[in-house]
Amino acid sequence: MRVGVLTGGSDCPGLNAMLRAIVRKGVQEYGDEFIGFRDGWRGVLRDETVPLDIPAVRGTLPRGGTILGSSRTDPFRADDGLDRMLGTLARHRVDALIVAGGTATLTAAARLADDHGVPLVGVPKTIDNDIPLTDYTVGFDTAVGVATETIDRLHTTAESHKRVLVVEVMGRSAGWIALHAGLAGGANCILIPERPFGVAQVCEWVESRFKATYAPIVVIADSALPDSGEIALHGVTPPPDGGPRDRLSGVGEWLGREIERRTGKEARTTVLGYIQRGGSPSPFDRWLATRFGLHAIDAVHQGDWGSMIALQGTRITRVRLAAATSTLKTVDPALYEEASVFFG
Amino acid sequence: MRVGVLTGGSDCPGLNAMLRAIVRKGVQEYGDEFIGFRDGWRGVLRDETVPLDIPAVRGTLPRGGTILGSSRTDPFRADDGLDRMLGTLARHRVDALIVAGGTATLTAAARLADDHGVPLVGVPKTIDNDIPLTDYTVGFDTAVGVATETIDRLHTTAESHKRVLVVEVMGRSAGWIALHAGLAGGANCILIPERPFGVAQVCEWVESRFKATYAPIVVIADSALPDSGEIALHGVTPPPDGGPRDRLSGVGEWLGREIERRTGKEARTTVLGYIQRGGSPSPFDRWLATRFGLHAIDAVHQGDWGSMIALQGTRITRVRLAAATSTLKTVDPALYEEASVFFG
Amino acid sequence: MRVGVLTGGSDCPGLNAMLRAIVRKGVQEYGDEFIGFRDGWRGVLRDETVPLDIPAVRGTLPRGGTILGSSRTDPFRADDGLDRMLGTLARHRVDALIVAGGTATLTAAARLADDHGVPLVGVPKTIDNDIPLTDYTVGFDTAVGVATETIDRLHTTAESHKRVLVVEVMGRSAGWIALHAGLAGGANCILIPERPFGVAQVCEWVESRFKATYAPIVVIADSALPDSGEIALHGVTPPPDGGPRDRLSGVGEWLGREIERRTGKEARTTVLGYIQRGGSPSPFDRWLATRFGLHAIDAVHQGDWGSMIALQGTRITRVRLAAATSTLKTVDPALYEEASVFFG
Amino acid sequence: MRVGVLTGGSDCPGLNAMLRAIVRKGVQEYGDEFIGFRDGWRGVLRDETVPLDIPAVRGTLPRGGTILGSSRTDPFRADDGLDRMLGTLARHRVDALIVAGGTATLTAAARLADDHGVPLVGVPKTIDNDIPLTDYTVGFDTAVGVATETIDRLHTTAESHKRVLVVEVMGRSAGWIALHAGLAGGANCILIPERPFGVAQVCEWVESRFKATYAPIVVIADSALPDSGEIALHGVTPPPDGGPRDRLSGVGEWLGREIERRTGKEARTTVLGYIQRGGSPSPFDRWLATRFGLHAIDAVHQGDWGSMIALQGTRITRVRLAAATSTLKTVDPALYEEASVFFG
Repeated sequence: MRVGVLTGGSDCPGLNAMLRAIVRKGVQEYGDEFIGFRDGWRGVLRDETVPLDIPAVRGTLPRGGTILGSSRTDPFRADDGLDRMLGTLARHRVDALIVAGGTATLTAAARLADDHGVPLVGVPKTIDNDIPLTDYTVGFDTAVGVATETIDRLHTTAESHKRVLVVEVMGRSAGWIALHAGLAGGANCILIPERPFGVAQVCEWVESRFKATYAPIVVIADSALPDSGEIALHGVTPPPDGGPRDRLSGVGEWLGREIERRTGKEARTTVLGYIQRGGSPSPFDRWLATRFGLHAIDAVHQGDWGSMIALQGTRITRVRLAAATSTLKTVDPALYEEASVFFG
Repeated sequence: MRVGVLTGGSDCPGLNAMLRAIVRKGVQEYGDEFIGFRDGWRGVLRDETVPLDIPAVRGTLPRGGTILGSSRTDPFRADDGLDRMLGTLARHRVDALIVAGGTATLTAAARLADDHGVPLVGVPKTIDNDIPLTDYTVGFDTAVGVATETIDRLHTTAESHKRVLVVEVMGRSAGWIALHAGLAGGANCILIPERPFGVAQVCEWVESRFKATYAPIVVIADSALPDSGEIALHGVTPPPDGGPRDRLSGVGEWLGREIERRTGKEARTTVLGYIQRGGSPSPFDRWLATRFGLHAIDAVHQGDWGSMIALQGTRITRVRLAAATSTLKTVDPALYEEASVFFG
Repeated sequence: MRVGVLTGGSDCPGLNAMLRAIVRKGVQEYGDEFIGFRDGWRGVLRDETVPLDIPAVRGTLPRGGTILGSSRTDPFRADDGLDRMLGTLARHRVDALIVAGGTATLTAAARLADDHGVPLVGVPKTIDNDIPLTDYTVGFDTAVGVATETIDRLHTTAESHKRVLVVEVMGRSAGWIALHAGLAGGANCILIPERPFGVAQVCEWVESRFKATYAPIVVIADSALPDSGEIALHGVTPPPDGGPRDRLSGVGEWLGREIERRTGKEARTTVLGYIQRGGSPSPFDRWLATRFGLHAIDAVHQGDWGSMIALQGTRITRVRLAAATSTLKTVDPALYEEASVFFG
Repeated sequence: MRVGVLTGGSDCPGLNAMLRAIVRKGVQEYGDEFIGFRDGWRGVLRDETVPLDIPAVRGTLPRGGTILGSSRTDPFRADDGLDRMLGTLARHRVDALIVAGGTATLTAAARLADDHGVPLVGVPKTIDNDIPLTDYTVGFDTAVGVATETIDRLHTTAESHKRVLVVEVMGRSAGWIALHAGLAGGANCILIPERPFGVAQVCEWVESRFKATYAPIVVIADSALPDSGEIALHGVTPPPDGGPRDRLSGVGEWLGREIERRTGKEARTTVLGYIQRGGSPSPFDRWLATRFGLHAIDAVHQGDWGSMIALQGTRITRVRLAAATSTLKTVDPALYEEASVFFG
């Protein structure tokens, strides 16, 4: 078969491991040929390709990023997007497409498969881990690792100077990185978008920690928001009803200043940013991405169009792309409660 | 309640994270008091205790090993073992016991709970990951991380000298570390105890790798054995039927020499040993051990005696200790097949 | 002897290794007793002490921060600062003082020693590496390690998205971290405070890198400043003559926006911040700090007051505190030229 | 100019960083062309070359090993070695040669330059750090880093089981890795080839450590030898006078067994082996190798034949290859004494 492959959305560690697995198994076991589309859906729109064969994937297993390039292009927003995509696929006589991406990339994939009959299979990848029906997405474990290592480092400077250290981690719509890295790093308070926070409560935890003569670490997702009381008090723009959640840009810096103002303790904020998305994938992400790749090429040869490869326990399964993109997987309140024994 | 805690068997990263979670939740939410028994079952036999309270567990989350100490003492082999244990528990007025260990330690726990009515709960911990009914055990992810990092390092020296590098990893009865680290590290051949290997096949993979002008990495579990043809040929002692699997001590060195002899290529062996068990736990192990600890103290307060805390997907569940210790979880042949696309 | 010890200024990795060496050698070889002053000079002003003996330093070698605490208090600015310090030292019958710090902390030490006859010895510590007469200061190698690892990570995301990534590293008055981490991380442009930069030149390098179809990494010290042409053009506040160098707060963010505006390429900025100062010291910093500690206690017993321990090549030597604090060690223009072969 | 380059001896991290610097500066500033010889001197003997230009060195800075390959071939032992080498160099019209290697490789280089007029420049590289007239060699800092990280890991398992852990590190003729990693890792005893050890003394240190209720770590260079008393007692083959130092193969295992036998404490040995030589170079090694490369190509254009690039303090200098290969740099007894305050 001639199989097209693309990686869309923000890049993350593990994509090259997945590409290597797809190509190794496709070539060796099925005799497939591959066409790499450059920079996600943009490459399909513009008919830009990248060579994708065994030499191209050699030695890429431990490398972050994606040799195909990535972009956040939404192909259905482009003029004649659908026609141009179908044209590219026809021109290359593509028999099947494998699409790795987050919710936005996979939503376009679901639409192409279900509404337009494009023979494709999806693979969930995002450091945010917010795709349902799979235990984890590719990239999440590495991001948690970077964030945890950072929190480990900040403990020593917090203690030496008796300062509050606020760490802002990524998490566009869900608090998974904050929750896991906060638990693993021994944070004294974890703030996630699923649960609006009261600054007064945060300050209470901070002060209780200082009373025990330790310096507190506050981990906050960059999409976390103060609760409505704070919003009224401080004129923070509220999230519009029904729409996608607004962010308070620089929420970590803002919270650091508020803590300093209210408790009189020195506070410093560190914004982790892009280093959570870069670098060599963790062993778990290499293992997950490799297995996702192997199962994706199997799904292609079984013609399981419109499916998404998923992890459930230690088994690789398949779910419908349409179901996996119809909602976001957010942090279960019970999990957050479980973690709260360590707050303060 | 007065809760006794012990950590038995070979030490592994994550135990301190578990102890911290047990104590934090026990003290803060349930008002428990704790007694730490020193060095696994030995401390119960000899009535040796270690203080276990919030100050004792502070700052221990990122540290490997166990502040309680550990040993491989089998308490039922000791003279009057049962009576001495029951005596110690009575003397300290212990209302419940939490036992973290591998199969041997937990087998004793199952017997104490089921046959002698000791109110206890188990937590599965071993870098070998060979306990059934839980997706993972505490310590496994860290061991895979150390082994993978090592394989990453060895690739460069293999390439520079065009040598075969054999890496012997731990795995008393199961090939989990070898399989995961081999996949994550890009090994060209993975040998596990579940599947006796033919040296001729290994040499074929080695030579095919050299033909592609790359240098091969062979990952072998320290309990892997050559198949019966090799055993006949080389007089390796065969594993006795039904008994515990015999090892070929130094199997990695032996294989390196055989490869060198048969292929004429230089081969070097590295035995990872104890570094797989030491050092700071990975974020995943900290998260898993913390959650296991939180759920263990809940199980104690629900009186779920004879249960073992387990991971299934992303949920923490409970299974019967008796069931979890009645067999070993070995590598599924299908998983091994899946990985074999990368051999050679 | 009764020896007081303090660690002043911003904390950095390696201080605990130094304290451990001082105490081990002092107690075992000289029979000394130690008094730790809390939080740098502040503890001497306020007579706040911390126990400092062999149990206190056990296990601290690999830990960042300082068990004594630190602060940036300038003791000569406090009311009656001198009298209060002399009073504290007399009250504790301190025979000698060991002071670890950066330029500000050591300047106060030089004044106490030379003008007021306090028997003391200094140890140079700062991630900025800006103290003259020593090849390196404690903490620098670890900071370079963190910054380099970050640059390694950002390369993959830069490549995947074909973006410019600007990394802002620390360096209050000198570009040492930027220079070393930029060289080690393969930056395509390094901007340091010693050499005002032209944004046009930076954009030229950025574009030449894209022409070679690679994505550029720009490393900038947080105290770097655009040159006078830019300052005139953009109304950036110029550094006042003769005074301490002004900073352009958020220079990394500003530069990212300028690059984006002028080249039309996407640019993202990552500000490393406090993680450069935290965490376990590198082996080099542990070795350096240990040796500095061993030689500091020797200098105390030789009565070499007013001296600072220094590294010259692989030898530990002594220089005068007064000389080491009279100026800052900035990056030699020839070294910067040497690195510029990799720009663009 | 047409410049040949080779990397000889055991591979080590940093060689690719050096090659990249040589090629970048040579091509951009001097307009040079490069010929890479494969696998050290062997490639010159056999006329085997590897392309060496800017595309070949792109992206190699963080990678261990050497893209040229390496071998320990001694070209003067080969039949007609000199003639074949001169033939290859003439055939490729090589104007100059840059030779990176350890003592053996550089000894051949010195002879070629001084006795046969070959225009060449040397660069010192070996994890053993045993080349005189330079503060450090390329690869040493990375090896110390790997060894220190390992010792950090082993502390936790030593403590948990109250075991002696013996760590055998590399060091063919000098104890530099053992000394630096032992100091940085907090070893309780460091054994180096420069100083024959008494097992009784080692056991005394081990027991004193247990008395302080801590578990000891013993770091031993793989070329360390027991003293003559032990040799007489145990029949260990003594090092022949004047000849190269003999090794006691498996000295770490032997010492572990002796400690166990004499003290009755459990002891385990870990042999680090090849992981000390592999993997991504440390920031220090990347910086050192890059600067060595830049200065090597300068030396070529200044015609400074027979010189070796060296580090003295923070300056890059040049020394004579003949002088740098006439002896080995071993550990100064005073440095070893300095470290001994931490023994026991």
